[in-house]
Amino acid sequence: MLKIDSVEKGLVIDHIQAGKAMEIYKYLNLDKLDCSVAIIKNVKSKKLGKKDIIKVENNINMDLTVLGFIDPNITINVIDNDTIIDKIKLELPYEVINVVKCKNPRCITSIEQEIQHKFKLTDKEKKTYRCVYCDTAYE
Amino acid sequence: MLKIDSVEKGLVIDHIQAGKAMEIYKYLNLDKLDCSVAIIKNVKSKKLGKKDIIKVENNINMDLTVLGFIDPNITINVIDNDTIIDKIKLELPYEVINVVKCKNPRCITSIEQEIQHKFKLTDKEKKTYRCVYCDTAYE
Repeated sequence: MLKIDSVEKGLVIDHIQAGKAMEIYKYLNLDKLDCSVAIIKNVKSKKLGKKDIIKVENNINMDLTVLGFIDPNITINVIDNDTIIDKIKLELPYEVINVVKCKNPRCITSIEQEIQHKFKLTDKEKKTYRCVYCDTAYE
Repeated sequence: MLKIDSVEKGLVIDHIQAGKAMEIYKYLNLDKLDCSVAIIKNVKSKKLGKKDIIKVENNINMDLTVLGFIDPNITINVIDNDTIIDKIKLELPYEVINVVKCKNPRCITSIEQEIQHKFKLTDKEKKTYRCVYCDTAYE
């Protein structure tokens, strides 16, 4: 099985739903980083059957808020000096900007190209996000 | 440094120019594979300074011709039973279909959407490829 050595210093983003790693790679702008990044797709997992993993080396200061929106089951370990120094617990972010688009064809964001796509969490229990402009729920 | 364990059976696509792994991932349609795939970006390399590596597990029958067009310096090891059973030498492919687009705005492929983008190798020494429809060279 493909395995990646543990990082000495960095982030391990684990338990990503199989096939979602590339999406996360994009949202976290990992392509713009100079540091070493490893993506492993379709790793066997007891919990999930299959999963993806991302490891980022030497960069532990990253805005990971968006991951809570994409998949709150993702786990994140922050590693320094070969030791896990933090486990980040993901939460549903209050606001999500330019991650998903409003599907209402009459929404201003569907017409004007330069407006940010902005959703707000309106129901934490049901995990409902609504477009701040037209109030359409994101499914 | 991020390292990935060697594969028992699979392909190791090495010495990829740093930053090019995602392009190759796309051209080889690796996103459509069910098997385990690892991509490591910006690995330190004596030869290249930095490089990318892709490892594909359990799948050794893949059309890799396009890699010769993208970067003939890429090396490919085919592994079975923990042993390198083949080293694939890349060559400039004679024909390249739907990999790059013709930049001539008057070319039929720029106008009609359903036509294949097809280039042929016209000068091996200079590595020149020309559009089969309008003869424009690809730079």
